[in-house]
Amino acid sequence: MISVGVLGATGAVGQRFVQLLAGHPNFELSVLTASKRSAGKKYRDAASWRLEVPFPEDVGDIIVSDTTVESLKKVDLVFSALPADLAGEVEMQCAKAGIGVCSNASTYRMEPDVPLVVPEVNADHLGMIDLQRDKGTDGFIVTNPNCSTIMLTCSLAPLRTFSFSDIKVATMQAISGAGFEGIPGMAIFDNLIPYIGNEEEKMERETLKIMGTFDGAEVQNAPFSVSACCNRVPVIDGHSMSVWIDIKDQVEKVEKAFRTWKSTLPDLPTLPEKSVDYIDLPDRPQPRLDRMKGKGMTVSIGRVRPGIRYQAMGHNTIRGAAGASILNAEVICDRDYL
Amino acid sequence: MISVGVLGATGAVGQRFVQLLAGHPNFELSVLTASKRSAGKKYRDAASWRLEVPFPEDVGDIIVSDTTVESLKKVDLVFSALPADLAGEVEMQCAKAGIGVCSNASTYRMEPDVPLVVPEVNADHLGMIDLQRDKGTDGFIVTNPNCSTIMLTCSLAPLRTFSFSDIKVATMQAISGAGFEGIPGMAIFDNLIPYIGNEEEKMERETLKIMGTFDGAEVQNAPFSVSACCNRVPVIDGHSMSVWIDIKDQVEKVEKAFRTWKSTLPDLPTLPEKSVDYIDLPDRPQPRLDRMKGKGMTVSIGRVRPGIRYQAMGHNTIRGAAGASILNAEVICDRDYL
Amino acid sequence: MISVGVLGATGAVGQRFVQLLAGHPNFELSVLTASKRSAGKKYRDAASWRLEVPFPEDVGDIIVSDTTVESLKKVDLVFSALPADLAGEVEMQCAKAGIGVCSNASTYRMEPDVPLVVPEVNADHLGMIDLQRDKGTDGFIVTNPNCSTIMLTCSLAPLRTFSFSDIKVATMQAISGAGFEGIPGMAIFDNLIPYIGNEEEKMERETLKIMGTFDGAEVQNAPFSVSACCNRVPVIDGHSMSVWIDIKDQVEKVEKAFRTWKSTLPDLPTLPEKSVDYIDLPDRPQPRLDRMKGKGMTVSIGRVRPGIRYQAMGHNTIRGAAGASILNAEVICDRDYL
Amino acid sequence: MISVGVLGATGAVGQRFVQLLAGHPNFELSVLTASKRSAGKKYRDAASWRLEVPFPEDVGDIIVSDTTVESLKKVDLVFSALPADLAGEVEMQCAKAGIGVCSNASTYRMEPDVPLVVPEVNADHLGMIDLQRDKGTDGFIVTNPNCSTIMLTCSLAPLRTFSFSDIKVATMQAISGAGFEGIPGMAIFDNLIPYIGNEEEKMERETLKIMGTFDGAEVQNAPFSVSACCNRVPVIDGHSMSVWIDIKDQVEKVEKAFRTWKSTLPDLPTLPEKSVDYIDLPDRPQPRLDRMKGKGMTVSIGRVRPGIRYQAMGHNTIRGAAGASILNAEVICDRDYL
Repeated sequence: MISVGVLGATGAVGQRFVQLLAGHPNFELSVLTASKRSAGKKYRDAASWRLEVPFPEDVGDIIVSDTTVESLKKVDLVFSALPADLAGEVEMQCAKAGIGVCSNASTYRMEPDVPLVVPEVNADHLGMIDLQRDKGTDGFIVTNPNCSTIMLTCSLAPLRTFSFSDIKVATMQAISGAGFEGIPGMAIFDNLIPYIGNEEEKMERETLKIMGTFDGAEVQNAPFSVSACCNRVPVIDGHSMSVWIDIKDQVEKVEKAFRTWKSTLPDLPTLPEKSVDYIDLPDRPQPRLDRMKGKGMTVSIGRVRPGIRYQAMGHNTIRGAAGASILNAEVICDRDYL
Repeated sequence: MISVGVLGATGAVGQRFVQLLAGHPNFELSVLTASKRSAGKKYRDAASWRLEVPFPEDVGDIIVSDTTVESLKKVDLVFSALPADLAGEVEMQCAKAGIGVCSNASTYRMEPDVPLVVPEVNADHLGMIDLQRDKGTDGFIVTNPNCSTIMLTCSLAPLRTFSFSDIKVATMQAISGAGFEGIPGMAIFDNLIPYIGNEEEKMERETLKIMGTFDGAEVQNAPFSVSACCNRVPVIDGHSMSVWIDIKDQVEKVEKAFRTWKSTLPDLPTLPEKSVDYIDLPDRPQPRLDRMKGKGMTVSIGRVRPGIRYQAMGHNTIRGAAGASILNAEVICDRDYL
Repeated sequence: MISVGVLGATGAVGQRFVQLLAGHPNFELSVLTASKRSAGKKYRDAASWRLEVPFPEDVGDIIVSDTTVESLKKVDLVFSALPADLAGEVEMQCAKAGIGVCSNASTYRMEPDVPLVVPEVNADHLGMIDLQRDKGTDGFIVTNPNCSTIMLTCSLAPLRTFSFSDIKVATMQAISGAGFEGIPGMAIFDNLIPYIGNEEEKMERETLKIMGTFDGAEVQNAPFSVSACCNRVPVIDGHSMSVWIDIKDQVEKVEKAFRTWKSTLPDLPTLPEKSVDYIDLPDRPQPRLDRMKGKGMTVSIGRVRPGIRYQAMGHNTIRGAAGASILNAEVICDRDYL
Repeated sequence: MISVGVLGATGAVGQRFVQLLAGHPNFELSVLTASKRSAGKKYRDAASWRLEVPFPEDVGDIIVSDTTVESLKKVDLVFSALPADLAGEVEMQCAKAGIGVCSNASTYRMEPDVPLVVPEVNADHLGMIDLQRDKGTDGFIVTNPNCSTIMLTCSLAPLRTFSFSDIKVATMQAISGAGFEGIPGMAIFDNLIPYIGNEEEKMERETLKIMGTFDGAEVQNAPFSVSACCNRVPVIDGHSMSVWIDIKDQVEKVEKAFRTWKSTLPDLPTLPEKSVDYIDLPDRPQPRLDRMKGKGMTVSIGRVRPGIRYQAMGHNTIRGAAGASILNAEVICDRDYL
């Protein structure tokens, strides 16, 4: 068992980390950090648990620590659910202190020697850990992308063998993506908001790095363009997106690619049977019905039509955040970086 | 005052017609038709009024008629809120009986001699009424487009002076568009449905006719393509859409077009001060906040970005259905077709 | 025209005050106050208008003032939408400076010489203004009750002629009652919260004062008990409540009382035709369908059953807050207290 | 393993039965019935699975049968999710054919020799099976109550030692209780409906039978009265209720009863660790956060206050329907009635 911690364990993504790590076969949850206000309390009391899944009683007695590298002495690996403005310093300190960092924060995602990884898509980018170590970092920082970018890149994985140069994507994103307190009820009931700060830029930038080629020294960005329109919709969990990709081939070939594609990763606890699942029904995927497929780790695809157009959907705080980061860690362990 | 009727007056669009026509300065509501089940009842009792606006008591005592041409003897003009499968026969009978028909049904929209009109965009297509009369029809049939097509074409009106050939549009459509009984609560709460039957085809087809040129004899379709992804979202009223249009000009020029464009129509009761309103805020338009602009007749635009990308939104049962049809009738009267 | 101001004009209730006062026949909106952060800005820019009704452009250019008595020199009357913790000092200063204060804040509601008024129920309590003036206050403070208490007491007005001693009420309250930022979307989607801070106490306490008798010197509390269970539900506007009242008479008599009761107030701009409206349908009142009756000032009643049980519902930010306060002011003017 | 069937397996409650029975340690799902329209199809295709939990693939290949006793030859026990108007005949035929029937339908609930059972409350009423057998029925019919009645009676179980005579209960019930198609989105978004057909009568009637005493021959109804106000609210799953019970004892004693009460049932697969769970937080229970406690079988209680008032909540299609019926079956097997 590898001893792990969660940074920012009381927020929306932090609670998902705790839920998914409680009972994990390889990772033992031993440190949970939060703001000073929560430090010293039992996690049970500090968390004010707000997931629809019952509280994992086993970890309820862990005393919440302050979010500092000192609190993390006994762990080998930390998962970071910190907001971007807080993540920078403590994540770097952890990495320098020999701790592996799997971060959901955006701070280091675009750094040249930090892997931005969706394992089914670009696990080879983990080779950048060697670059970090060459520079004297004992631990490492590995990041997962922004939630909507994860759904998009998973959906693109089966399409890599096709020729295309232009992607347009309109997202319809769930409110949990903004955190528990992020969006007032009055702002989103009977409504949608056609704006999510920085989200379009993240999708356009991160997708190219993830789909890019890593030659052992640096990433060459993928040679296509991405244009995103991001919308917040009144859905609790599950980011949907309508995607156009200028593939000239027939619909049938694209459908077949979605149906037959399989990840080449080994068997891992958090890897679903199908990372990409093509649903052969006229009105799917739908967030409430499909987001828990593969325990929330499957990206569901549907409605391939000429254009090529298709619909993709996945659970934003599992596949798109905490689960993504944990899967990264499982691949990292499997490849003996830890 | 022109005596008018509403066909299918008890449904979602029918009730909007009644609400908007009650108190109209030029049209006097005198006949309301519905299915046999409702015929003979007072409208007050037959309607089971389900709009958020209080019931217009003035018309409550009208006795609902069966939906036949015989019921409509005393009217000069009817508004049709019938479902497509019922509209065909009775609308044609009305037109032949000398009654003007302004129809929200899809039945005749693509007929070569039936105008498909959004007045701010192609009021000149009303010239097709002459074609109908040349063939011996005393009345006429004029149609308004599908709700989402209306929002799209209104947003395109200010962009006609630009050069473009390709439009991609992802819609997020309100549940009222499917009628009062259309979508079970269990199907759409905490969910979205990436499919609306026939909607993408309608948007792609109708837009080209509306934006086409009418030379007095026939319509030449507009020379661009439209590709649509239609999604149903948990919003009561107001269709939103994220639009890409391959205009090469600068964002500023497009924004200016949206800000400065004005319809050339004369002053009419249902014509809003601004048919297109550009909102200069980062997170708009939003359905709940903007759908009632211009008494529900304004299409709100926002977020013009390179691409060109923008967001459009309008009230689907007012601007996108009943109000659109009434505005058509006002223009028809203004042009002395009635 | 009486020159009026609104204290706390940018919040949820403050915006309702502005909406309802824009265009009022007797009150001229001349001062709008808010926090220091907003002071100096045009109301148009400071408000970030979030009502579903379009912004009242006429008042958009009013420069927002700081919430101090100095800002209010030119007004004769202020409406207070301040939070309870801020209202105390500035409301008292206004009253002492000769300004009439109609307050929605809870601060002074239970003070012995401050009227707590629902005009249809206890307009005679306005006589307490004389008590205030006897103590040297040139202006006055008049309060309206908590939103849910208003609905309850309006529903009790027609029942005063019956004998009863015990009321039990379970409320289902809209999220707008907590202000624009009050309840996170994540907290209330697909959920309800069986707790609203202090609300049960307010209902139990305020109802007895309002229904009490004022003998010119003090209020004798009403001789019955009220027990409340308050729930927050995912409804935007409109507080519903299931009420039990131990009236031994027949259902028909109670129904008749609801149907025939009329307020004895004179004609006033904000007074609806029916302050209490009995809906004779099996499944009403419903918030979305009935909250705008009487321009939001009508309390709708339905389903009188043995018990006696009934359902009541009204618009919480109009009937239950801003509209209530404005109606108070209209009665105050009518009775020449200003 | 006991071979079991589900009658009406494609509806909302039917799908819950299938979900909960797939993988049950003692019951083997072998027959699924539905309407003629579905008969002959694989359950996978007939169900159009609409639960938020992924489809149980193991049972997907079962061929759906027509809902007749002939289809059920190979089962010993059936669970009935039929609507009340269809349940009567086929359930009786099954019982006469020697099959045990655990029914969620209301048809036979009030029959003098049919047990209406919530096992934690009145498992002894199962003795009525002997009465049925005395009359020559080889199988049996055992019913579980209406969903809201189950929550209420579970919450009353710990209070039996107190003296009380009057219960008032205002429910806030989830839309899943009306079936998948039961409530249009337009009817319940931003709304609530203060009426559920027959629900108040069921709660008032069934509670007294369940809480009554069975002397081996007949049930003596419980000696208290129940008065219910039933509301439908926009919540997907989870019925909440605000309850008044005229217990004169102190709040602390009632709280203690809720905290310490334990069912005397033996360990059974569907019996949760806590059938009644008192949550010691000021704003609970909440449907989204608490409905899945005890795998959906726990009734959560909170906010005991003078009155006595308290809040109760449980999952309406698990604890309140399918799970209740399965737990009944487990007790029946444990007591060797099958």
